[in-house]
Amino acid sequence: MPRALIITGEGFEDIELLYPYYRLLEAGFEVVIAAPSRGRVRGKHGYEVEADQALDEVDPASFDVLVLPGGRGPERARVHPRAGEVVAHFIDSEKPVAAICHGPQLLITARRVSGRRLTSYWGIRDDLVVAGAEWVDEPVVVDGNLVTARYPPDIPFWMREFFRLLERRGLLKPYPEG
Amino acid sequence: MPRALIITGEGFEDIELLYPYYRLLEAGFEVVIAAPSRGRVRGKHGYEVEADQALDEVDPASFDVLVLPGGRGPERARVHPRAGEVVAHFIDSEKPVAAICHGPQLLITARRVSGRRLTSYWGIRDDLVVAGAEWVDEPVVVDGNLVTARYPPDIPFWMREFFRLLERRGLLKPYPEG
Repeated sequence: MPRALIITGEGFEDIELLYPYYRLLEAGFEVVIAAPSRGRVRGKHGYEVEADQALDEVDPASFDVLVLPGGRGPERARVHPRAGEVVAHFIDSEKPVAAICHGPQLLITARRVSGRRLTSYWGIRDDLVVAGAEWVDEPVVVDGNLVTARYPPDIPFWMREFFRLLERRGLLKPYPEG
Repeated sequence: MPRALIITGEGFEDIELLYPYYRLLEAGFEVVIAAPSRGRVRGKHGYEVEADQALDEVDPASFDVLVLPGGRGPERARVHPRAGEVVAHFIDSEKPVAAICHGPQLLITARRVSGRRLTSYWGIRDDLVVAGAEWVDEPVVVDGNLVTARYPPDIPFWMREFFRLLERRGLLKPYPEG
């Protein structure tokens, strides 16, 4: 069973976490949510999810794909000393990475945006440009293994491109049993 | 392009509407949201969507599939005089119908639950049993063209079965362009 990691923290944008979480479960993935510490994490709109692992415990090599939802979660996660290293693993090993809204803040923390074509929530565009990214204002941007989007209305386009990438990588079975 | 109708109203359960909405867009559907009147409809958790059509305006024959999210939306929608007739069209013409949580209240209003095997949020189980349904406590129940589930954690299983049904009906292209 392919394995997905979601990195987040308190104040995540609920739908940006819940959509890829349920979408990957629907496709037969095992999905692990990691946050600065284990236990309940609450979204901006009040949905709660359980962080299965603290960032300290994450073994990034055991995962096939990474998802970085937005909201205030990425700021909470990025100050954890292991966050950058965990994210960098996925970029360096060319595993599929989906990031939306403020999620790309974690790519900056990982020092992995220089030279990448991507998008994000408009409010962090300048940070990404200063960090060396080619920032574009499009609903979804695919650059190799990196699939980025701006805000919740982009979700269907973001996930369509991400799932195309997963299919190309052989990580999908259509409508798995179980 | 296949067309999906979502019927809801004020106080919908946000993720139960947003997940199938984005999921169908991701799959290349045109998706129309209908409510008692046009305009903004607000979910329990504060997400807002635009009702494209008032229930009065809906031509059910122009749609291929129906989704009935839960929360308080179905109670708001079912008191509209056309709600039952619109829902009944999908059941009678054996088009795929996905309902979750309080969504099956609209199936009662349509007088289309008698003899059907289904599930729902536990709080409306008795209404469905009295209306003649075979109610079962499972994450997802498929009975012909009707796919039902209980609450948000069932969403991945609910949508997996719904999309299997759409595939069998020839309504899906894998990862459509555009």
